[in-house]
Amino acid sequence: ARPNCSVGTPRVINAEKSEFNEDQAACCQISIRRREPGLEEDEEWLILCSTQFLTGYYWALFDGHGGPEAAIIASNYLHYCIKQKLEEVVGGITEARPPMHLSGRCVCDSDPQFVEEKHIHAEDLVVGALENAFQECDEVIGQEMEATKQTGGCTALAALYFQGKLYVANAGDSRAILVLKDSVVPMSCEFTPETERQRIQHLAFLFPKLLDGEFTRFEFPRRLKGDDVGQKVLYRDYFMEGWGYKTVEKADLKYPLVHGHGKQARLLGTLAVSRGLGDHQLKVIDTNIEVKPFLSCIPKVNVFDSALHDVQEDDVLIMATDGLWDVLCNKEVAHTVRSFLADNRTDPHRFSELAKCLVCRARGKKRGHQWMLDESREASYDDISVFVIPLHKREED
Amino acid sequence: ARPNCSVGTPRVINAEKSEFNEDQAACCQISIRRREPGLEEDEEWLILCSTQFLTGYYWALFDGHGGPEAAIIASNYLHYCIKQKLEEVVGGITEARPPMHLSGRCVCDSDPQFVEEKHIHAEDLVVGALENAFQECDEVIGQEMEATKQTGGCTALAALYFQGKLYVANAGDSRAILVLKDSVVPMSCEFTPETERQRIQHLAFLFPKLLDGEFTRFEFPRRLKGDDVGQKVLYRDYFMEGWGYKTVEKADLKYPLVHGHGKQARLLGTLAVSRGLGDHQLKVIDTNIEVKPFLSCIPKVNVFDSALHDVQEDDVLIMATDGLWDVLCNKEVAHTVRSFLADNRTDPHRFSELAKCLVCRARGKKRGHQWMLDESREASYDDISVFVIPLHKREED
Repeated sequence: ARPNCSVGTPRVINAEKSEFNEDQAACCQISIRRREPGLEEDEEWLILCSTQFLTGYYWALFDGHGGPEAAIIASNYLHYCIKQKLEEVVGGITEARPPMHLSGRCVCDSDPQFVEEKHIHAEDLVVGALENAFQECDEVIGQEMEATKQTGGCTALAALYFQGKLYVANAGDSRAILVLKDSVVPMSCEFTPETERQRIQHLAFLFPKLLDGEFTRFEFPRRLKGDDVGQKVLYRDYFMEGWGYKTVEKADLKYPLVHGHGKQARLLGTLAVSRGLGDHQLKVIDTNIEVKPFLSCIPKVNVFDSALHDVQEDDVLIMATDGLWDVLCNKEVAHTVRSFLADNRTDPHRFSELAKCLVCRARGKKRGHQWMLDESREASYDDISVFVIPLHKREED
Repeated sequence: ARPNCSVGTPRVINAEKSEFNEDQAACCQISIRRREPGLEEDEEWLILCSTQFLTGYYWALFDGHGGPEAAIIASNYLHYCIKQKLEEVVGGITEARPPMHLSGRCVCDSDPQFVEEKHIHAEDLVVGALENAFQECDEVIGQEMEATKQTGGCTALAALYFQGKLYVANAGDSRAILVLKDSVVPMSCEFTPETERQRIQHLAFLFPKLLDGEFTRFEFPRRLKGDDVGQKVLYRDYFMEGWGYKTVEKADLKYPLVHGHGKQARLLGTLAVSRGLGDHQLKVIDTNIEVKPFLSCIPKVNVFDSALHDVQEDDVLIMATDGLWDVLCNKEVAHTVRSFLADNRTDPHRFSELAKCLVCRARGKKRGHQWMLDESREASYDDISVFVIPLHKREED
């Protein structure tokens, strides 16, 4: 177990089942400099006198592939990108009369009605900052990897607690859920070649050259073989959620752009995720086909407003890489969380012990040559990283 | 009131407030020819002997713009395209051993597990047929309009009752809802420049030439003016659900690709919808910029399985163009539906009378120069078309 954490109660636990762990975790406080409104760049001395800070709390998990390098760079940079992007919009969050229009106030006297209709709130600026920060971080990773001739990529799942709200930004197949007293709230969804099939196929439809004649953009329920030519088979194109029949042509025998199901699904036969950071140099093996155009570094951001909920002492945010979720469903995790916290009410380290407990459950027990979850289910062979983040404010301690 | 309907109890009612009605309705039975499996094309005489038919029931509303022509062609052709596309997949629905794998049966003996995992059902073939039919119909409209030198486009909302399931396919801003005894089930969502902003902006990001230097792809909360240059304003790019700040440059003063809010939202300053059929020739006024690349003719299909619900006598599907929904919300419509049907239990024409009643409510009453919904709310000035389709099977009559 590797506690890798700089503030507060959360602890990150890593199973270290393999020697080559590609998961990375980061956790820190983010101080956002708030400038006195109306000051110009050249009044720097005034800014120094009047600087105030807003505080955010940040946790993130990165699951690397093709080596841990991208995950390491992301864990070193993403919080800085978020800080920077939040500072760019902090005026809109804190000023009484922010640029343009926020929280019902409007500075566009000529046309007040129109901007009011957009209902833009401080929350939307934080979401925008996170979206921009992921893109910025992806660029930084691209530069760093090129300069050091390293390769690889990583998923990114980041949580930010800021101004009473919890923001969860996800690009990849890690997952965050809130385990509350009476409910489980998903705070992310997974981005894989399967969940993003239509986006990926559509890009290949718009730019067929990206496939260099080596792949077919159609989806088939199984790999086609030579003797399927002339037969009717099920297929889907980019615009279809349903299925149709087509008569197999020779071109359909090419390897499919998106192929396989569940954990076996692959983009260009290469990657198991469709969003994340890095992979700028990644090519399909033995070809000149680039994978990056089909990847997205943009996260989907979910927001939880703790002011709207009566947060309880045992309410927690669980963040984990796919190593946990591959073998345990939300319900099983929620059950473990609730029973563990109820049984260990007085332990001052119970949240980090819970993270350890979740990792150990997914890691399983060795029986002969196999790691098993229980009598019948195989345990996770992947890296497993878990954050347990209590939502309730602790008494001053 | 114009009853425009060829089978069964449903009636379509049109308000005819204006002389130039651009709404069109269609309703018919669709007979899908089911071939004896294993017969080849050259055994046509055998096919004729053994032909059987599956029956579907079809209702559709088309809201035209730039003239009624596209809506008229769509109302004449879409059911035929659906029939054709269903016949292409009917084997997968009816055969005991369909091509490839459906409903748990698998004809790929070499690799049975893999195709099983996809869980493809007959329902998915109907969804795929509807998706393909909309695309086919769009092509037909393009050809017909070109040949006759006509212009314009239309939204399309189509319902198909087939094999015990109700399919609703929508491309545009019409809406279908199920009003059941204890609940209201939305069966469609609206596709407008506002709801599809990110898709539209992304296309402009990928192909900047489509904007020909005349539009900006960024969204701003209001139209920018010359004296905004150098100021910080709120903006959104294609990858953002949140908002950010940017410093206004001269290029930002161009007209925005997507502009306005709610009913005022426009694509390229031209269209109020982002999906539909037709518009192949449409250009932004006084420019060479084509609108069609930003439009999609692909519907989103929702399915309601009546076998999973205890369908009541007064349960109905309400389909209507935006003329109704602009002034009445789902809740108001559901309230009118339930109280009207309860008050008119014995009227044999109560479903068509209900459609009339809904149209008349949205049409309002003339007070002076204005049509009013009630004391304070303006009525709809748009064309209003409504289908009321009972879900419960009538006693044999």
